[in-house]
Amino acid sequence: MEQEGSTIEGRNAVLEAFRAGKPIDKLFVLDGCHDGPMMSIVREARKQDTIITYVSRERLDQMSATGKHQGVIARGAAYAYGEIQDMLDAAEKKGEPPFLILLDGIEDPYNLGAIIRTANLAGAHGVIIPKRRAAGLTAVVARTSAGALNHTPVAKVTNLTAAIEDLKKKGLWFVCADMGGTCMYDLKLTGPIGMVIGNEGEGVGRRVREACDMTAAIPMRGQIESLNASVAAGVLAYEILRQRLQAAP
Amino acid sequence: MEQEGSTIEGRNAVLEAFRAGKPIDKLFVLDGCHDGPMMSIVREARKQDTIITYVSRERLDQMSATGKHQGVIARGAAYAYGEIQDMLDAAEKKGEPPFLILLDGIEDPYNLGAIIRTANLAGAHGVIIPKRRAAGLTAVVARTSAGALNHTPVAKVTNLTAAIEDLKKKGLWFVCADMGGTCMYDLKLTGPIGMVIGNEGEGVGRRVREACDMTAAIPMRGQIESLNASVAAGVLAYEILRQRLQAAP
Repeated sequence: MEQEGSTIEGRNAVLEAFRAGKPIDKLFVLDGCHDGPMMSIVREARKQDTIITYVSRERLDQMSATGKHQGVIARGAAYAYGEIQDMLDAAEKKGEPPFLILLDGIEDPYNLGAIIRTANLAGAHGVIIPKRRAAGLTAVVARTSAGALNHTPVAKVTNLTAAIEDLKKKGLWFVCADMGGTCMYDLKLTGPIGMVIGNEGEGVGRRVREACDMTAAIPMRGQIESLNASVAAGVLAYEILRQRLQAAP
Repeated sequence: MEQEGSTIEGRNAVLEAFRAGKPIDKLFVLDGCHDGPMMSIVREARKQDTIITYVSRERLDQMSATGKHQGVIARGAAYAYGEIQDMLDAAEKKGEPPFLILLDGIEDPYNLGAIIRTANLAGAHGVIIPKRRAAGLTAVVARTSAGALNHTPVAKVTNLTAAIEDLKKKGLWFVCADMGGTCMYDLKLTGPIGMVIGNEGEGVGRRVREACDMTAAIPMRGQIESLNASVAAGVLAYEILRQRLQAAP
């Protein structure tokens, strides 16, 4: 396993990283530590909506590479996250209806990297992932994306359902992949669309699924239960592209 | 990385494994060792068309778990390989035109496992892989296939081009995935078909490509070069399934 992005240790280094606007995925703080300097760090982290985890001294010691963490370790993302509005702007600039891929808790960095790669080639304008219980933009993800991370933005949101509701107001339709749905070949998947792929083990969560307009089933002719998550994302994304190509002159 | 199937060490154990018909992927023999017992092992290996590699004592010592290899180590497959004829028989029994997936040197066991998983769900009757320069049926592949290896046979052939020529005589058409080809939506992919996916880095080899009847390009709307191999296999396999479903009543 490669290192997950960069690790920043010690109070000054972490505070500076936040103030310089570096993308921080997670902040680990010594449990029970509430002195002034630490509260400044926590305030900066909250401002940027970073996930804060309170841990024991033993855990921090284990995580520390320098041995001088001073009660705080920040884990930086290997790549900067993008903004959803930039994805919509990019679509408009290209004269294309927006096509976004939302991932409801993909945990395997190889799957996340492969899906970003697919998003780039299937013509999606961006990928949206949740902050919690999901792989972030680590070095493994960057490498597995085969360069796609340089072209296809990935945005991180606190609440996927809220992001869907917000985008619906902007005219997007949402389709989630779930075997209980309508065969994807029988759905109209053209126009401004957001495609939702679920977690490797549990699929799309109930609240996210209920927020979607359509549920698309990938036909299954075999004995096993499901495709690999990145393969399922590829198959559905290319069905959307096929319908787009047929609809376009 | 998990252990690649089982490892069998020592002259008697290896000879017995061959005689018991255990699936052996590779045989490593001490270079320059030609005594009687070793020649019996080599003869059994040749009979079963096992790849034999002659290596130095240092290499064998490194590979050995027991330290008692006696000049020979066999690497077993985690699963038994199937026969191409059984795949054709299975298709006939189901009243379906044969649909086989051929992999020209997939090296990553995670990709191989994901493709076997896709083959099962997209209704393919089997997967064909070459003996050399390719991932075999290791424990990682079995696990990544999510159970598909119990249902979808995988056959191993010495020469992929020869296997294609042979299957063409039995009425199959061959399509290989290559970005230089015709857009896959514009090809007729119904009927008895073999789909060929290339190696992760180099794609489909020249001789294999020339043996195919058609070259299918997956549309690429982005900046990067290629999809992940298992995603590409999924996208093309599902285009074949889509056309089959449309052609069927």
